[in-house]
Amino acid sequence: MTNSPDVLWQAIRDEVTASAASEPMLASFLHMTVLRHKSFDDVLAFHLSSKLASQTMDARALMELINDALHADPQIAISARADIQAVRDRDPACKAYSTPLLYFKGYQAIQCYRVANWLWREGREALALHLQNRISEVFAVDIHPAANIGKGILLDHGTGFVVGETVVIDDDVSILQEVTLGGTGKETGDRHPKIRSGVLIGAGAKILGNIEIGAGAKVGAGSVVLEPVPSHVTVVGVPARIVGVCEQTQPAQAMDHRILKED
Amino acid sequence: MTNSPDVLWQAIRDEVTASAASEPMLASFLHMTVLRHKSFDDVLAFHLSSKLASQTMDARALMELINDALHADPQIAISARADIQAVRDRDPACKAYSTPLLYFKGYQAIQCYRVANWLWREGREALALHLQNRISEVFAVDIHPAANIGKGILLDHGTGFVVGETVVIDDDVSILQEVTLGGTGKETGDRHPKIRSGVLIGAGAKILGNIEIGAGAKVGAGSVVLEPVPSHVTVVGVPARIVGVCEQTQPAQAMDHRILKED
Amino acid sequence: MTNSPDVLWQAIRDEVTASAASEPMLASFLHMTVLRHKSFDDVLAFHLSSKLASQTMDARALMELINDALHADPQIAISARADIQAVRDRDPACKAYSTPLLYFKGYQAIQCYRVANWLWREGREALALHLQNRISEVFAVDIHPAANIGKGILLDHGTGFVVGETVVIDDDVSILQEVTLGGTGKETGDRHPKIRSGVLIGAGAKILGNIEIGAGAKVGAGSVVLEPVPSHVTVVGVPARIVGVCEQTQPAQAMDHRILKED
Amino acid sequence: MTNSPDVLWQAIRDEVTASAASEPMLASFLHMTVLRHKSFDDVLAFHLSSKLASQTMDARALMELINDALHADPQIAISARADIQAVRDRDPACKAYSTPLLYFKGYQAIQCYRVANWLWREGREALALHLQNRISEVFAVDIHPAANIGKGILLDHGTGFVVGETVVIDDDVSILQEVTLGGTGKETGDRHPKIRSGVLIGAGAKILGNIEIGAGAKVGAGSVVLEPVPSHVTVVGVPARIVGVCEQTQPAQAMDHRILKED
Amino acid sequence: MTNSPDVLWQAIRDEVTASAASEPMLASFLHMTVLRHKSFDDVLAFHLSSKLASQTMDARALMELINDALHADPQIAISARADIQAVRDRDPACKAYSTPLLYFKGYQAIQCYRVANWLWREGREALALHLQNRISEVFAVDIHPAANIGKGILLDHGTGFVVGETVVIDDDVSILQEVTLGGTGKETGDRHPKIRSGVLIGAGAKILGNIEIGAGAKVGAGSVVLEPVPSHVTVVGVPARIVGVCEQTQPAQAMDHRILKED
Amino acid sequence: MTNSPDVLWQAIRDEVTASAASEPMLASFLHMTVLRHKSFDDVLAFHLSSKLASQTMDARALMELINDALHADPQIAISARADIQAVRDRDPACKAYSTPLLYFKGYQAIQCYRVANWLWREGREALALHLQNRISEVFAVDIHPAANIGKGILLDHGTGFVVGETVVIDDDVSILQEVTLGGTGKETGDRHPKIRSGVLIGAGAKILGNIEIGAGAKVGAGSVVLEPVPSHVTVVGVPARIVGVCEQTQPAQAMDHRILKED
Repeated sequence: MTNSPDVLWQAIRDEVTASAASEPMLASFLHMTVLRHKSFDDVLAFHLSSKLASQTMDARALMELINDALHADPQIAISARADIQAVRDRDPACKAYSTPLLYFKGYQAIQCYRVANWLWREGREALALHLQNRISEVFAVDIHPAANIGKGILLDHGTGFVVGETVVIDDDVSILQEVTLGGTGKETGDRHPKIRSGVLIGAGAKILGNIEIGAGAKVGAGSVVLEPVPSHVTVVGVPARIVGVCEQTQPAQAMDHRILKED
Repeated sequence: MTNSPDVLWQAIRDEVTASAASEPMLASFLHMTVLRHKSFDDVLAFHLSSKLASQTMDARALMELINDALHADPQIAISARADIQAVRDRDPACKAYSTPLLYFKGYQAIQCYRVANWLWREGREALALHLQNRISEVFAVDIHPAANIGKGILLDHGTGFVVGETVVIDDDVSILQEVTLGGTGKETGDRHPKIRSGVLIGAGAKILGNIEIGAGAKVGAGSVVLEPVPSHVTVVGVPARIVGVCEQTQPAQAMDHRILKED
Repeated sequence: MTNSPDVLWQAIRDEVTASAASEPMLASFLHMTVLRHKSFDDVLAFHLSSKLASQTMDARALMELINDALHADPQIAISARADIQAVRDRDPACKAYSTPLLYFKGYQAIQCYRVANWLWREGREALALHLQNRISEVFAVDIHPAANIGKGILLDHGTGFVVGETVVIDDDVSILQEVTLGGTGKETGDRHPKIRSGVLIGAGAKILGNIEIGAGAKVGAGSVVLEPVPSHVTVVGVPARIVGVCEQTQPAQAMDHRILKED
Repeated sequence: MTNSPDVLWQAIRDEVTASAASEPMLASFLHMTVLRHKSFDDVLAFHLSSKLASQTMDARALMELINDALHADPQIAISARADIQAVRDRDPACKAYSTPLLYFKGYQAIQCYRVANWLWREGREALALHLQNRISEVFAVDIHPAANIGKGILLDHGTGFVVGETVVIDDDVSILQEVTLGGTGKETGDRHPKIRSGVLIGAGAKILGNIEIGAGAKVGAGSVVLEPVPSHVTVVGVPARIVGVCEQTQPAQAMDHRILKED
Repeated sequence: MTNSPDVLWQAIRDEVTASAASEPMLASFLHMTVLRHKSFDDVLAFHLSSKLASQTMDARALMELINDALHADPQIAISARADIQAVRDRDPACKAYSTPLLYFKGYQAIQCYRVANWLWREGREALALHLQNRISEVFAVDIHPAANIGKGILLDHGTGFVVGETVVIDDDVSILQEVTLGGTGKETGDRHPKIRSGVLIGAGAKILGNIEIGAGAKVGAGSVVLEPVPSHVTVVGVPARIVGVCEQTQPAQAMDHRILKED
Repeated sequence: MTNSPDVLWQAIRDEVTASAASEPMLASFLHMTVLRHKSFDDVLAFHLSSKLASQTMDARALMELINDALHADPQIAISARADIQAVRDRDPACKAYSTPLLYFKGYQAIQCYRVANWLWREGREALALHLQNRISEVFAVDIHPAANIGKGILLDHGTGFVVGETVVIDDDVSILQEVTLGGTGKETGDRHPKIRSGVLIGAGAKILGNIEIGAGAKVGAGSVVLEPVPSHVTVVGVPARIVGVCEQTQPAQAMDHRILKED
């Protein structure tokens, strides 16, 4: 894409080369999945198609489809790279760039969604829904392909994440497992949450309805949010209420799930 | 079954024929799974067996088993049809009758449970438990085969749904993801919730113990219910308390997850 | 291991022999998985490798690896046996010793973690992370291999369980589905909960940070715990507060999810 | 089919029950393939579909197809039974009725051809050619589905058997491996051999052109036959010539591959 | 490749479209394998990789490899097209262009050899030998990747074909099943037959040693050829001797396996 | 097994290490199959079980079985090593010790037979016949497990090899493709050929009946042998006759398929 060296790809190759040398059990997987490829994009297409392939959807057809998406919309790969950086920066359990790519199902599910979202934008809704289903089976992550998700996203652990059709998630958001961004009622229009940049959503939180979670807000674990949340506040509880100003400007970066003392 | 034309089956065939024509990537899957079959029941048996098949349980043996269940207990197919109608009516993201059948794991998990439940009633408990395990692996939905679930059920998204051995769910109930209908204590008798008709249970709610959730009640997302809930009220919180009368007569139909203003 | 007869293994064989005789659909699976083997350990290695095998990790290589772990660290099999006893004792829906071994994904996920944990202790971190990922895909259970988990554990249903890197769980703990034992913030040191013996953690509870849950405490379903919990108390709510002394000395044994009357 | 007991099916069940009891490694296969079924036809459909299934042709669809063929044309099952009897009578290495059914690829290939032949007669030529290809891959036996093959056929070992479009093989014929019944030239009409009842064709023999091999004739191993062969003679050589009267009235029964002394 | 319409590709698409419409059992296979692709080359790469894929060689990696070969050496696709024409012209049982591509293992084995041969020429001998082995397993056709095979080749049925390292086969040759083009002795130099244009080799013939079979010669079925054969003669027997002038100028085209009257 | 270094195993490892480094497409296969193992026997058990595994016979169960055979009868591994040496010495197309082990189906089929033969000798006839069938499907080599085959065997290419129940093959024999060592008649006693040391059997030869082929004899390609053959002569033809003394003392070593001048 550019003439500058691909630092992320080189880091991943170096990490994986070391793993393959030290762990014979993984050498075969790592050669097939990473080392024989020429670029980050090739690995992404190969590995995601490994995850999504099934008796009813051939791995080769899936790999071609993901390659088509990566070529048609360069933003997908840019976001996939930004998400790796986000995980590496914010998750203390992640000590290598290759780890989310190879092993974190939250990361993988988001990238598969990006392909389904491209299909949806291309008017290929049936195939987009097919992928949504397969992503839900494989990763237990259910993201409607029409949702609009930015880059620099950390979806930690991922299990149980549910995202509705008209959700918007801006860049640089961190979300823990079992979060729902859902609708309420049967109207078919714009009915899901809008998550602004820098937000941190704790494990198990449910945010329901066409409400905005303002930039830099923090939603406590297990909270149920039914009303809009202003920027830079912390909300907690079932139903959630404001418990104070969020002490970090970017809670998505700080990943601090504690609640202010005044709570 | 009857001489009247099978409207649902015809609608599914029409939708799928259009999809197969417009999306070559899906044509092979749709022909194998839907278009070459003669009835709704055949598709159900084929597709569910595709989902449940594994290295240790042959797809053919499973398809035969599901066909046996459908022939022995016509109520299974009646319920499977009513559930499709429920999803189509209540889920604004569902725009076709074929979508839940092909792609919604909440729907598929409930139908697989119906087969396991028939086995349990036939005294084939070992095989019923085997299916329960496989359903839990594939769909992340864990329903004890002895539970008693009616028709017209919407299980939206499905991930994390847990249903205990003596649960009863009446007709026309809507349930979101990550709901538990669980027991409490080690006694082995009747120890799980009874959910009456028209109830809506929000995402992440936990209802524990042999308590009744009255007809037309609404359980807010994230609530933990340890006491019986009267008909047509809304309960919210951890632990849950009554916050008002539920404004809809059939909250399962309205799918309105908001809490009354007086809350 | 000892000259005394292996009572658990004999009970499992007897149960499975009866199942295979009464249910032809299972006979093939039960012979391959249980009846042709010579010991409990052989069955464990065979069955867990069936669950974890994938296109990218050969079942034979996995079985060898699990056998290596079982030989190198006898505590793994001891714990795997104690966990079966725990499920049999505490889960009223479990009526046979073979059921958790064959069918309960909470049980299976914990035993797979034990193998990943052995790898981590041996310095084979890459392979341990590989297994963690596969366990998360197959069982929707995400346990960091560096976590430290005792024996006599009941992980009921399992779906959504998340365990961080520096978690400690002592012996004889019972945990329901969708529980998170997570960190808070980005520091990389000791940052996760310590769960003491006899604790019961209800469905959906989130316990976050380097805090101790004292011996014999009970954490109510759906609770969010951000502060240490003394021994033998019950905590409930979002965020959780103490609602009373826990009436059972070993709530993990009693499995009573109700909250004290004074609540 | 009749009210008389099914002696062959009972014999097969008895043999297989004994095998499953004495050989745990086979118990799973034998239960799945034989013991859980209700009739010889069910086993035939299940086992042949196991053999023919591939990534591109689902085992369930194949089993349904074979069942359709068995129901539509009862002669297929009659011939499949007669062929088992032929193998059992004439092959001294075959000591049980279940052995050809389960293990002899010559037997299995002929039965798969019978299904392809039914498809051809039904005008489903494309699917018949598909099966022909799959039979050739799996068994190395290439029989044109339009060929006409009787019952009581022993195809010993099978590898390399080639049968052209207008071949006729009457009842009670024995054929060894690597036999070709081929055409000559590019004309498209009746151009292949006609093999009459009781004929024995030795290993590696090639019979080419629209020529008749008379009833009870014997074709020596490795012979190349380009001219008609009268009844009850033995032919040998490249090209083949008559070396004498065949001493057995039914060489297919006697299976004596020796050549007369006067040769 | 050119601006002229691709007549072969259009014919194949038309035939396959008709098959898919008339035979629902094949629709899924035909869509996945042919109809969703954009060119003959794409179908060739997809279908051959379907045939060669195994637990130890991923279908995607194989498809990429075949695509690499087709791009690097355009002669492979030219030959693959000429071979289809040869089968269509010379085999009276072949009534469509798509039939050899989809179903004739002799055709498929030759095209797979062409890929292995390209690898050998590129110095990738290990991978070429890997493919040779897989071709031998799948098609029972064993061609050394260093052999040199022209275009317009009909390999009818294919089973048992063996071709040594220094074999040369010129254009427009027809070969029946079970033919060996083998070496003799242990010397490692040029030691295998050279088959000139227009030759017809009958079923089961063995041609051994560095001998030339002259242009337009005919080798009778079952013959063993150990001496050079002049152009335009027919040889027959074990060992083979000249029995006359071959009446056709291009026996490979005429496919007449009869031997002259004077024989 | 001994304290002396294992030269063959070291040579194989060195060859495979070089291949894995130079050919990324093979690295995954070579690590999984060879490089992660500790001995030649481990590789043999792993690789043969890869070949024989099927939907109905688990790879792990097969690997355990082969390991059992290798431990119980050390002669199997001794013969497997001698056969590699035989191929390396006599086949000019074989340039590495690892090639037959990894890629030559003649070699692999013989080793699989050795396991089936051990089962037969142990009285496990049902499982032996099961393996015979699977070997015939995978390699197109059909060897009765009761046959008695020595070591130092070269089975070149392998396709179509058929060996009857009472065959004896002494050490140091070379056999080409499509050879039959068959019986004649329906008697069940000793009825198959006895092949003495040093014999060379050409491609397509059929040897039928309880006759001895004397030490150092040569059977020409395509010959049909119905009478005993003295030591150190060459026989040719259909039926075969003696054409002279065999000029090599060990034709199996010389691999010279030419016939003496006086023929």
